[in-house]
Amino acid sequence: MQKMTMLKKVATRKYPEQVVLVTTKSRKGKMNAMAVGWVAIASGDPMMFVLGIDDGAYTHELIRQTKEFVVAYPGEKMAAQVLYVGKNHGHARDKIKECGMKIQKAAKIRAPLVADAVANFECKLVDVFQPGDCPLVVGKVVAVHENRSPAVKRLYTVGPGHTMGSVRIKNG
Amino acid sequence: MQKMTMLKKVATRKYPEQVVLVTTKSRKGKMNAMAVGWVAIASGDPMMFVLGIDDGAYTHELIRQTKEFVVAYPGEKMAAQVLYVGKNHGHARDKIKECGMKIQKAAKIRAPLVADAVANFECKLVDVFQPGDCPLVVGKVVAVHENRSPAVKRLYTVGPGHTMGSVRIKNG
Repeated sequence: MQKMTMLKKVATRKYPEQVVLVTTKSRKGKMNAMAVGWVAIASGDPMMFVLGIDDGAYTHELIRQTKEFVVAYPGEKMAAQVLYVGKNHGHARDKIKECGMKIQKAAKIRAPLVADAVANFECKLVDVFQPGDCPLVVGKVVAVHENRSPAVKRLYTVGPGHTMGSVRIKNG
Repeated sequence: MQKMTMLKKVATRKYPEQVVLVTTKSRKGKMNAMAVGWVAIASGDPMMFVLGIDDGAYTHELIRQTKEFVVAYPGEKMAAQVLYVGKNHGHARDKIKECGMKIQKAAKIRAPLVADAVANFECKLVDVFQPGDCPLVVGKVVAVHENRSPAVKRLYTVGPGHTMGSVRIKNG
């Protein structure tokens, strides 16, 4: 049975929630990464992602500038790095270097792959919509990479305050 | 380290993945439910959801007709019901009745709440975008309900072929 309640109360019942990393590289060569929780698949063929990326974020600026970005599923050992790039702003610093995130060259775009991720999706910008208080960035996947180790699993947001952790299937 | 691969291969590494139910009610009073995996928050204030809902789906037709719908987080004991409404089409049948899904009246719209869900969000249609092969339906939350039992947890898609299951935080 349901009871009417406030949004804030229900927010604590949504976890575990997915999280991805979004990497970008400016025309001048500066790289950046951020964490995004508002993400879903937006199209199957071609595959697209839709991501909520605030227009105050450096990532938003670099996506507008370069029309490309990488979406990566962080590996479960990357909790500290995901928190770092999620909580700090990229305009004035080199978050990737500061948190020790390992990167690799992508195949078709200039933004970097996340070496320790479960998977990386190179994306070209398709469009930006804004139905509410956050721009929704849509990217088309142009190349896909996966971790060579099948043992690497996704990291999730597992509780309020951006608590990061691993999940396992119950009885699975 | 990453290796380049095919989309199909990487698809198996995305799980667990979130899933929601979307309920609707036609002008004539016919109710329907479907399962949606392409879903994300699209705005914080007001809260909005963005959902990939194919325009061949009865749910899509009813959302266009009534401009409203409910998003529900299914409870982990609802696996069979979620699979049922996800795999069958609603045009010619009463999926909610057939799978025994319990419903309740909503507060501000006519579409029903899912009684055994973790939470229900009553939504008014804001817009529909289509950047790729699937319409993206955006709804604004106008009322929120949660399960009276704090023990009810979300159900997830835990593997290929719409395998549904429970997840737990590791060491959490």
